[in-house]
Amino acid sequence: MRDAILRLKMRTIKMTIEYDGSNYLGWQVQPRGLTIQGILEEKLALLTGQKTQATASGRTDAGVHALNQVAHFRTESQMDVRSFQRALNSLLPPDILIKKIEEVKEGFHARKSARSKTYVYQILNHPLRSPFHRTMAWHISQKLDLGEMKKATSYLVGEHDFSAFRSVGSPTRTATRRVLRAEWKMGKGGFIRFEIEATGFLKQMVRAIVGTLVEVGKGRIESKEVMKIIDSRDRKKAGPTAPARGLFLKEVKY
Amino acid sequence: MRDAILRLKMRTIKMTIEYDGSNYLGWQVQPRGLTIQGILEEKLALLTGQKTQATASGRTDAGVHALNQVAHFRTESQMDVRSFQRALNSLLPPDILIKKIEEVKEGFHARKSARSKTYVYQILNHPLRSPFHRTMAWHISQKLDLGEMKKATSYLVGEHDFSAFRSVGSPTRTATRRVLRAEWKMGKGGFIRFEIEATGFLKQMVRAIVGTLVEVGKGRIESKEVMKIIDSRDRKKAGPTAPARGLFLKEVKY
Repeated sequence: MRDAILRLKMRTIKMTIEYDGSNYLGWQVQPRGLTIQGILEEKLALLTGQKTQATASGRTDAGVHALNQVAHFRTESQMDVRSFQRALNSLLPPDILIKKIEEVKEGFHARKSARSKTYVYQILNHPLRSPFHRTMAWHISQKLDLGEMKKATSYLVGEHDFSAFRSVGSPTRTATRRVLRAEWKMGKGGFIRFEIEATGFLKQMVRAIVGTLVEVGKGRIESKEVMKIIDSRDRKKAGPTAPARGLFLKEVKY
Repeated sequence: MRDAILRLKMRTIKMTIEYDGSNYLGWQVQPRGLTIQGILEEKLALLTGQKTQATASGRTDAGVHALNQVAHFRTESQMDVRSFQRALNSLLPPDILIKKIEEVKEGFHARKSARSKTYVYQILNHPLRSPFHRTMAWHISQKLDLGEMKKATSYLVGEHDFSAFRSVGSPTRTATRRVLRAEWKMGKGGFIRFEIEATGFLKQMVRAIVGTLVEVGKGRIESKEVMKIIDSRDRKKAGPTAPARGLFLKEVKY
């Protein structure tokens, strides 16, 4: 692009995005239905006057939220980034927010440049559900044994073939991923949070892991069994997929 | 009722209710549209087999929330209260929850027996809005002067004619109310909360007070002016009515 003298300089813009995924079919544009990417690209086209592609660190599924999704776009627009942010936030619906926006070096790619991603899964472990958190947590009334869940969690850390936690029908590339950190934290009022950082995730991997660890917490799977489940590489051995509404993409590191 | 020997004993049941008011026209049954009372009475009729009236401590307006609304109903049903709670919670939509249920003495009346009510109003005072709190806070990006707001708040405590903070067109009964406590609390991440306890409230009184105190925080009204606004008994002297979405009925004392 740089050899065309009359052409404006192409800039790469990195956005940090927060969204409540409840009303969306996920990040990625679909043939029909609302998606985060779809709405964002529509507003970017409006602001830049050109079709503009927004590339995220990865897809999030329908109903999954983001505290800090990262996406980039390339544009010839010379609008300063603060104005971009203000204009986008005034055009975007109230459940999507551009938290941060910055110009980055040309080679930056939201997905390919990512070194690690962190997800949080929120469970409300309380006899009563919560009207205000109904779209932001998985409500489980049965008391979970967090001690056993923590034991089982320790087996996840490190490099493993995570086929056992990959959604059925995924493409057949390598299922080996490196989990850097996985831990449970007690919150207030019955909220417990699972936080996992890895160099990459398979499709629905966090939800399959959480579904399995909840089975451990309910005493249906023994904690040490989780190591065997990982080794089996068999999705059928693991627990059910936890609901999307408890999952938040928390951070992407570059 | 007790003199009819064949009749079952009439019981009075007190419920503590949490609801996200976003999708409702408020507590009170309306000719058309969803209301908390309407849905609750529908489920009570289903469970008891009889038309059952639910009486709350007071109405909440469209979009206003409750952490602990109190309502009572009278019933001949002999179902134990735990079963009542479980059955109601399984029938009610996810944005309404019966937090507590107990049998009380016959004379108990959710509105008439109330000694005080406490409301909380939540403001997000931050340059950026919040996707996850969009229906639970009033977002104000301009930095508010909380010190001045606190000074103005002190004038509210005590017995006053609150006509200046009463919604226009309210019935003309006495507008004198006793405010027992009114204070601002700093939360995390830009959230500030106004908490006010009074023996009673006029229609939209808390929202008119908050709207006025925000004008003080923006420097448009001087803090000491608020005393004069109260004395004027003139709604036009006070600030605008704050949006419903930031308001929560927090507690009813008996």
